[in-house]
Amino acid sequence: MKILQVSDALSIKRTVDSGTEEQLLAVKAIIEQVKQEGDAAVKRYTEQFDGAVLDSLLVSMEEIDEAYADLDAEMVAIIQEAASNIRSFHEKQIRPSWMTTEENGTILGQKVTPLDSVGVYVPGGTAAYPSSVLMNVVPAKVAGVERIVMVSPPGKNGKIPAAVLVATHLAGVKEIYKVGGAQAIAALAYGTETIRPVDKITGPGNIYVALAKREVYGDVDIDMIAGPSEISILADETARANEVAADLLSQAEHDERACSVLVTTSETLAYEVAAEVEKQLAELPRKEIAAKAIENFGAIYIARDMDEAVATINQLAPEHLEIMTANPMELLGKIKHAGAIFIGRFSSEPVGDYFAGTNHVLPTNGTARFSSPLNVEDFQKKSSVIMYSESAFQENGRKIASFARLEGLEAHARAIEARWK
Amino acid sequence: MKILQVSDALSIKRTVDSGTEEQLLAVKAIIEQVKQEGDAAVKRYTEQFDGAVLDSLLVSMEEIDEAYADLDAEMVAIIQEAASNIRSFHEKQIRPSWMTTEENGTILGQKVTPLDSVGVYVPGGTAAYPSSVLMNVVPAKVAGVERIVMVSPPGKNGKIPAAVLVATHLAGVKEIYKVGGAQAIAALAYGTETIRPVDKITGPGNIYVALAKREVYGDVDIDMIAGPSEISILADETARANEVAADLLSQAEHDERACSVLVTTSETLAYEVAAEVEKQLAELPRKEIAAKAIENFGAIYIARDMDEAVATINQLAPEHLEIMTANPMELLGKIKHAGAIFIGRFSSEPVGDYFAGTNHVLPTNGTARFSSPLNVEDFQKKSSVIMYSESAFQENGRKIASFARLEGLEAHARAIEARWK
Repeated sequence: MKILQVSDALSIKRTVDSGTEEQLLAVKAIIEQVKQEGDAAVKRYTEQFDGAVLDSLLVSMEEIDEAYADLDAEMVAIIQEAASNIRSFHEKQIRPSWMTTEENGTILGQKVTPLDSVGVYVPGGTAAYPSSVLMNVVPAKVAGVERIVMVSPPGKNGKIPAAVLVATHLAGVKEIYKVGGAQAIAALAYGTETIRPVDKITGPGNIYVALAKREVYGDVDIDMIAGPSEISILADETARANEVAADLLSQAEHDERACSVLVTTSETLAYEVAAEVEKQLAELPRKEIAAKAIENFGAIYIARDMDEAVATINQLAPEHLEIMTANPMELLGKIKHAGAIFIGRFSSEPVGDYFAGTNHVLPTNGTARFSSPLNVEDFQKKSSVIMYSESAFQENGRKIASFARLEGLEAHARAIEARWK
Repeated sequence: MKILQVSDALSIKRTVDSGTEEQLLAVKAIIEQVKQEGDAAVKRYTEQFDGAVLDSLLVSMEEIDEAYADLDAEMVAIIQEAASNIRSFHEKQIRPSWMTTEENGTILGQKVTPLDSVGVYVPGGTAAYPSSVLMNVVPAKVAGVERIVMVSPPGKNGKIPAAVLVATHLAGVKEIYKVGGAQAIAALAYGTETIRPVDKITGPGNIYVALAKREVYGDVDIDMIAGPSEISILADETARANEVAADLLSQAEHDERACSVLVTTSETLAYEVAAEVEKQLAELPRKEIAAKAIENFGAIYIARDMDEAVATINQLAPEHLEIMTANPMELLGKIKHAGAIFIGRFSSEPVGDYFAGTNHVLPTNGTARFSSPLNVEDFQKKSSVIMYSESAFQENGRKIASFARLEGLEAHARAIEARWK
């Protein structure tokens, strides 16, 4: 693993995969076909891309029962406990509608309303990601969204993995469709005979899913388009090299383009971690992926002091930040840009990926400068409420008309004056 | 104005102007030139598009003093009072960082941090829009953004209108640059010798500005891309036709593609409003624009009863909604989708455009289904905070490792287990 001075910190250049022209054209064609032919197109693409011939897109209650039977009971309990932790943390984010009243009768406020309907995309492929189900569905549920739909591509056997079905059912969603890729996004955005359209689509996916989400954005809302995962660790001489290395590798195994960075004030730690990474890497099942990530996007930076180290972290604006220093809480106030901040030795990043209750859908690629983790407010919207009384109107009407005329908007001024006639 | 039955309500089809291929290429070229040449490119485009030859892009203190001198003192006071109302409403939106503590030592929370820097675009052209300055700058200021930059295209005389400069200065912004169009967006996103880059760009603009914002999105954040303005009025037989008509026209004068709709349970009101619109329209300075908007996108819908009328409003999801019925507050709970809701006879829409304190930057084109008015949170972001104690870790570590293995992510499980070794 490269060891560099902090002044080189900006040498990490990462690009977001925005797809090829060919991929974009394919996605546009799929969306168009689903718009025109509905279910027929969806089933055709599912056969073509997933190798599954389906009678029904909807997952049946029998399939859900089967999934529970297939999954280890202890695992079901763990998923349930994780869901409960996520629910508990997200419930604390709920903010009610509010209003202010003035003596002259004016009422101003914000009315908070859940979205009507949300579609959650859960990737398929070789692995099952029940945690992704929980992180997207639970906040929507807590927000009060009435209709939540889950979509995920079936395997060749026409099934969705048991863990995903169980997580979806535990999170309280019963409308589950076996469809993935751009065809799933098109169905959610524009509807088919079977799948009614939704107002917002969230959840990660491959490049076709990402491109399709960009295409339908505006007609429906979407969450962020996530880039490869990132971790930055801020550590001093009190951190343990084997733990730091293990955490760096936990991000590196996600993706060849994942980014694992250590920023430390300790030269000793830097060299120890570099050695530990090599050692642990050799024993990982996904070592090929992790090795490429570490080689291309991994780095250890040595800072002169903690201020310089913190400044580097703020420049990186990482998705995940771990602080492993003697007094990590003291540094919290200095951290300006990070999706999630893990404090202290026992807050290893997977704690937040799966279990603590915070959301693992986080801003990547430096967007923590201006974006937030997925949260309850992503599934609600606000309406301003304005009630002017007659007395407030009489007091201020003339000023409002003057302001409108200053902007050359005469009809606005006359709308005010119509109340005087 | 067309009078229709509610069953025709969905006949209003509106499209967002997404620009031509030629416009997009022009915008891309401008962005590239500004990236490469900085100030030189910005000044060249300002000469080319605005006809102004500038020595300095930065507005000087003298120019601001001049602006105050040029503007009527009463008007300055009105702008100041509007700014104060907007500040007061937005201050009530502030939500602090928060945390929860558990007995086992776990701390979870959300850290709220203002964005570092924001650029506000204020359109130029024939009119001055000081209200747009206030609606964008004040929430950013309230959010705690340290660096707020305003950009606006100069007139041929090399100046920004007095009202815009005064509003900007009153809102507390001193970094003002005379640059507009795609070149302004490029300068804000990527920086030049004079203009340091920002993290987010907000504010309305023409199609070139909108396209440029879309292009730079991801490198920086942007607010919504606003479509033409809309008003829907929900009224019963107690509403006054001349007031309803005046309010419909106040939106229609904005843009040929503005959308003014009345939904009413009273056939009498429907016909009276249609007649009033004709009458008032004839006397408007911007009657050509308003007439086209009313003809193409205006409509009066008659509903059988209030439930049907409310359902129609929720289908339209208008930017502005006025409720002029006998008991308007009773209907508030039924309104699911609207950017801003104006309640009762004296809450004419311009009250909110200029003065009451709510924001006039609102979701258009049906996006009130999933979007909110511009608010303080648009200028802040959250970071999740996770601190697991040793005891919380010992209690849950094994479950977390199992969850990771269920997803095939062995390095995640080992990161947990590294703490046990």
